Amino acid sequence: MEKIISLAKRRGFIFPDSEIYGGFSAGYDFGPLGTALKNNLKQAWRKAIVQKNSSVVEIDTPVILHPAVWKASGHLGHFSDQLVECRKCHHRFKEEEVKDNRCPLCGGELTKPKTFHLMMKSFVGPVENEQSVVYLRPETCQGIFINFKNVVQSMRLSLPLGIAQIGKSFRNEINPKNFIFRTREFEQMEMEWFCREEEAERWFEDWKQQRMKWYLDLGINPKNIRFQETPKEKLAHYAKKAVDIEYHFPFGWQEIEGIHYRGNYDLKNHQEQSHDRLTYKDPVTQKEIVPHVVEVSAGVERTLLAFLIDSYEEIQGGRGKSSRQEKEIILHLSPSLAPYQVAVFPLVTKEKKMIAQAQNIFQELSLSFLVSYDEIGSIGRRYRRQDEVGTPLAVTVDFQSLQDQTVTIRYRDTMKQERVKITQLTEIIHQYLNQPKK
Amino acid sequence: MEKIISLAKRRGFIFPDSEIYGGFSAGYDFGPLGTALKNNLKQAWRKAIVQKNSSVVEIDTPVILHPAVWKASGHLGHFSDQLVECRKCHHRFKEEEVKDNRCPLCGGELTKPKTFHLMMKSFVGPVENEQSVVYLRPETCQGIFINFKNVVQSMRLSLPLGIAQIGKSFRNEINPKNFIFRTREFEQMEMEWFCREEEAERWFEDWKQQRMKWYLDLGINPKNIRFQETPKEKLAHYAKKAVDIEYHFPFGWQEIEGIHYRGNYDLKNHQEQSHDRLTYKDPVTQKEIVPHVVEVSAGVERTLLAFLIDSYEEIQGGRGKSSRQEKEIILHLSPSLAPYQVAVFPLVTKEKKMIAQAQNIFQELSLSFLVSYDEIGSIGRRYRRQDEVGTPLAVTVDFQSLQDQTVTIRYRDTMKQERVKITQLTEIIHQYLNQPKK
Repeated sequence: MEKIISLAKRRGFIFPDSEIYGGFSAGYDFGPLGTALKNNLKQAWRKAIVQKNSSVVEIDTPVILHPAVWKASGHLGHFSDQLVECRKCHHRFKEEEVKDNRCPLCGGELTKPKTFHLMMKSFVGPVENEQSVVYLRPETCQGIFINFKNVVQSMRLSLPLGIAQIGKSFRNEINPKNFIFRTREFEQMEMEWFCREEEAERWFEDWKQQRMKWYLDLGINPKNIRFQETPKEKLAHYAKKAVDIEYHFPFGWQEIEGIHYRGNYDLKNHQEQSHDRLTYKDPVTQKEIVPHVVEVSAGVERTLLAFLIDSYEEIQGGRGKSSRQEKEIILHLSPSLAPYQVAVFPLVTKEKKMIAQAQNIFQELSLSFLVSYDEIGSIGRRYRRQDEVGTPLAVTVDFQSLQDQTVTIRYRDTMKQERVKITQLTEIIHQYLNQPKK
Repeated sequence: MEKIISLAKRRGFIFPDSEIYGGFSAGYDFGPLGTALKNNLKQAWRKAIVQKNSSVVEIDTPVILHPAVWKASGHLGHFSDQLVECRKCHHRFKEEEVKDNRCPLCGGELTKPKTFHLMMKSFVGPVENEQSVVYLRPETCQGIFINFKNVVQSMRLSLPLGIAQIGKSFRNEINPKNFIFRTREFEQMEMEWFCREEEAERWFEDWKQQRMKWYLDLGINPKNIRFQETPKEKLAHYAKKAVDIEYHFPFGWQEIEGIHYRGNYDLKNHQEQSHDRLTYKDPVTQKEIVPHVVEVSAGVERTLLAFLIDSYEEIQGGRGKSSRQEKEIILHLSPSLAPYQVAVFPLVTKEKKMIAQAQNIFQELSLSFLVSYDEIGSIGRRYRRQDEVGTPLAVTVDFQSLQDQTVTIRYRDTMKQERVKITQLTEIIHQYLNQPKK
């Protein structure tokens, strides 16, 4: 884990939040490569869930919704943890994290558990009082439920149908921990699949498989990912069935995504609270029904951390001839996730013509791809720098390029090099990126 | 304006926030087409500012930063409006919105102006007190300044360089108004360009031109967009130069983007407050300098509203033969912004083979593009529905398609139709979307 955190900071993936002020506990600052990786991850989810599926649409609702939403959803009443504090070292814990009523850090005595509300609040308008309290959403899905009718009507959708949302959520966690795994501010990718009650269990199984396939297609090692079914007695009171997708982190097996069959609890509650109708009129039977819901809900930062860890390889002594004594790091990220899809280098940086040609190639490729341009250090070092951040392809402009308008493409995982025509580069890279998974 | 708001709701662009609960004033709920348009808009900005420019990187920092950030930035002290309230109708206004000390709505007497802080606050941790207060960022750029050192070091960047960020900001506005133009929760696209002091004015001019070109390239009518220079006496005390890009909205000329030469005010202040060094070591002179900054800062929702309004055309009587009596709406959105890039229709919806072929084409095209599939209503109605949401291309599968594997492509703006081979569709669409602007 320390290796990942160190690489993440050194190479511009993830920095501590507000580091120049001694750090802060809300979240993390994503650097350029972490931001690109996060954007790509969200785009891969969007493509799989929304773009390829004519029955799924994406919406985007505010962090601050009408406070009544959280009453209907049950969050205002029940979204809390039990907090205990050590009388000796004053560290705070969730009660469920403590095993034998002693402080896990210093062994000191603990206070009695106190209810701790997890929604973060704010105020809208000039006066801070009960009437002006608002909440920062603790999950994105409620924005979906309250828009069910507007979406179905404006988009003329029929059951089954999905409504997705990607966005920030906030939870006043007692104990943010494990790097970006649990933070107070985070992003979710959620999709609510609305269907007929009698088909819900079948869809639950279907989405379970689809979601697992997504992780495997993006390169997660099957040994490090598993389903974990929630036992009946631990289900939330409204949930009919729930399974987590867990990843094997250095700090143990932990949830990265939940697939929940929520019945029609949410729509029903919003219907009651809002006195509006959130029903669907069956075009055949003409009956009004409140659809049942299967939810898929993934954490962006958690998933990103899983991909970082899973793709990390460290080779003592290195792979190249010139790097015998060094340690080499390779991130075997899927090309669709990698912060850069291709790097462009001039072989010799004192040759003005070579630099000009490399920069031209950068310009051309950056119309279609995320491209890194690097002219610092030996070519071997530059390859290794790209391996370390997961760039799957590197294009080098050399002396021969100046003669015959060809360049070499070097592949991250195999280190194989090929010579190709500059005019064919875009097409070759397109093909490589779109090739089906082995 | 009413026409835009009505179209936006009817066709799934933008709904009132929390509408089933009577609406709420923080923001708006973006429906499926609005979300796609917003994603495309941000992607177009990212492509122009970051992807095509090897000197610019993008980062992503939390909404909740260390509170000291807002002390250093000056927001904690000065980020406020003067609020007046009507004693009769109790409406509240910014003092600057009121002309003659009378309520603009009912003519009633107004209270004396009261300072109203624009940052929204929250609390982190179990106790709500002075120590636990945090603020929701009112602008994304401070997350950039505090990461200047981390970004430059990890990415090995040299001056001039840009650091960009796209993300949510929050302001406790007294008077949210003009649809999505001014809301309490909104998104910004900001880029801070760090350069040597002696080059800053030249870069200011350069970014001014680049940013205007971006709007024009994306199709904004030159008549509806202009520069508006901030007179010296109205400049913020730290600003050296500022120009707004204004769009001619139905409610007047209003800022959609600001281009500001901020000196080195921000880095200097954060340096002082954090006791950290935010300098850049000139590789030639070896001198440590605090770079100067040119900022480009656009509002996502404002810009989106400008594109919606600018692309809106209403034709009484319609363009088609079959629609003589109707009003037709066409959104002439740039293909790179349009929520759908292409629509796919089976001509006759009772022909199973035709539907299957159209769905196959949907599947194939949706690997590369944002595609709408529609089989409801006459083909003429379907074309008009797509015109109304700005889809530039429509592909129709007809009887001939079943014979010879060809389809028609119909162009939104010209209504011209062409017959092409199905196998060539992806390439033809790629070419159409990437064609240089006329």
